[in-house]
Amino acid sequence: MTAGRGDRIATLDDSVRLTADSVHILDRRAFPDRLEWVRASSAEQVADAIRDMVTQSSGPLYAAYAALTLTARQVRGLPLDAARARMSEAGRVIGDARPTNAHPREAVARILAAVAPATTTSELVEAAVAAAAAGLTHYADLSDSLARATVALLPDGSRILTHCWMDAYLFAIVRAADEAGRNYEWVTTETRPYLQGARLTAHSLRELGQDVTLITDSMGAAALAPGSTIGPIDALVTAADRVSLDGAVVNKIGTLGLAIAAAAFEVPYYALIQQPDASTRTAADIVIERRRPEDVFETLGIRTASPLVVDGWYPAFDVTPARYVTRIVTSRGDFPPDSLADYFAEASA
Amino acid sequence: MTAGRGDRIATLDDSVRLTADSVHILDRRAFPDRLEWVRASSAEQVADAIRDMVTQSSGPLYAAYAALTLTARQVRGLPLDAARARMSEAGRVIGDARPTNAHPREAVARILAAVAPATTTSELVEAAVAAAAAGLTHYADLSDSLARATVALLPDGSRILTHCWMDAYLFAIVRAADEAGRNYEWVTTETRPYLQGARLTAHSLRELGQDVTLITDSMGAAALAPGSTIGPIDALVTAADRVSLDGAVVNKIGTLGLAIAAAAFEVPYYALIQQPDASTRTAADIVIERRRPEDVFETLGIRTASPLVVDGWYPAFDVTPARYVTRIVTSRGDFPPDSLADYFAEASA
Repeated sequence: MTAGRGDRIATLDDSVRLTADSVHILDRRAFPDRLEWVRASSAEQVADAIRDMVTQSSGPLYAAYAALTLTARQVRGLPLDAARARMSEAGRVIGDARPTNAHPREAVARILAAVAPATTTSELVEAAVAAAAAGLTHYADLSDSLARATVALLPDGSRILTHCWMDAYLFAIVRAADEAGRNYEWVTTETRPYLQGARLTAHSLRELGQDVTLITDSMGAAALAPGSTIGPIDALVTAADRVSLDGAVVNKIGTLGLAIAAAAFEVPYYALIQQPDASTRTAADIVIERRRPEDVFETLGIRTASPLVVDGWYPAFDVTPARYVTRIVTSRGDFPPDSLADYFAEASA
Repeated sequence: MTAGRGDRIATLDDSVRLTADSVHILDRRAFPDRLEWVRASSAEQVADAIRDMVTQSSGPLYAAYAALTLTARQVRGLPLDAARARMSEAGRVIGDARPTNAHPREAVARILAAVAPATTTSELVEAAVAAAAAGLTHYADLSDSLARATVALLPDGSRILTHCWMDAYLFAIVRAADEAGRNYEWVTTETRPYLQGARLTAHSLRELGQDVTLITDSMGAAALAPGSTIGPIDALVTAADRVSLDGAVVNKIGTLGLAIAAAAFEVPYYALIQQPDASTRTAADIVIERRRPEDVFETLGIRTASPLVVDGWYPAFDVTPARYVTRIVTSRGDFPPDSLADYFAEASA
């Protein structure tokens, strides 16, 4: 949540704000067409906003910490038992808001653990507020470590192809590149059906003064091919939603095709995640969420397919096998996808 | 221009109509949202319609033959020299209408050659009308031969992934499959930025009673991957705009990525063209047309990218090297991409 190059700030890098009595969440469903904030004055209202997809990616983490900080302030005058019960209830609704995004549950677990030893309401409030601040700092620190490891792989002047929306990682990379004195050129896919690339990534990069060229999802392979008129692409870089221990990358649908093309044309593919998924041995253990087929028939809510079309297929993610991944870049540096055990070995060392 | 399965007719399979005094061209820019016909009462007006992209793919060929037939009727009362001059002038404007679509020029050459020996206006008119009819029949026959060769490669029950819009080939394949008693399931990409897959292909296949599932361009690799929840894809099948003698396929942007993914997952890729390009030794000899970058920022004329985006890249086609192509299917059967010389050997045999 710090600024990018000089005084430039990306709107989405400061999209959850806590005021004295409420949490304000930038509505990413309308952004960048309209700059609208959803105001929530309770943990329940924040949970509603998370459930309604007002914010995504790193947003629910920020919203969860803000919601629990707000709740801690609101229980200040209650007896300890009541305060603790209210914190637990707030944690429950926040944790349940989005079944497939683990971020809010991580935030809840961190804060409930912090308030457990409290012997007075005042201690509880103080512990919750401190744990939320520490949680946000920890997340930002891990993103910054990951970003520095990414920049180390990308020399000055690199032209980077990216897909979908890397959120906190994207901002951290731009900051880390600035600190390292490196400039990058970005090529981003539009990322149908929700157009996160055309709307969030391209917009944010432009806000940060970056050079960005927009392509449709169908143009990735041609961009990666030798002799492409967009100039050589030096690396494919995407975030990962999950990485299993065998080095397979689960990420936004479309990543697989780009990774296969990158491998065919010997362009490295770097997949970014703070840490691999210790509980997931192989990608076969991951159930890929299917979304409503109608999303394929529409663009920003307007029907763009023939009215006769009735069948569509919309898997939210795809699985890129390790053989198409050059490096998994984590908060502990980059690893070959077949050596992810080393990530945890370093943890226990 | 014959009908598909039973009494079902695809609107786009009868999209240029010649009446007593005019040519009516279905406006594919509005289709299928609106069924609008552009009326042209001279070769010049037909050329304007072709130039304005009222019709594409096989459409300009049909429009060219209709325009020259109409012109032949219009010169009926003129002296021979004036009639011949008018035919030549009509041929010139039709041939110049679209620099990169060779179809209208082929139609013009065929008709001007046919009228050359005429010694009376009446002979000229008769020769032109007969040559236009023969040209249309020839084109349909070649498409039918190509379609039968395609169906021979696709067993009953095949699930076919296609990209963009195969026009006459698509209709011919559906007819040939019906004749062979084979049913196919179709999966079509939407084909950004113009959405030919979502609008033309999906619509036409539905009109013909086919089973079709729409996906975004980003989903092709995931559909081709083993274990895909869309079920196994048995073949990738696309038309080709051009095929060079080294077996490289020039086709709508996005074909390359699909072909690479198909090869990675051992799904055959069949590229369809009536005949390879005898004058083009390798794909390196082909200049890829670049279209306006703004097309990437828009969907059906509406801005869908962030307003901050200023740079885009829109190559109309990509080049798929022969190593990713299983067979080039022509009007003379299917060929391995490294044996295209055999196509011409058969011609001279």
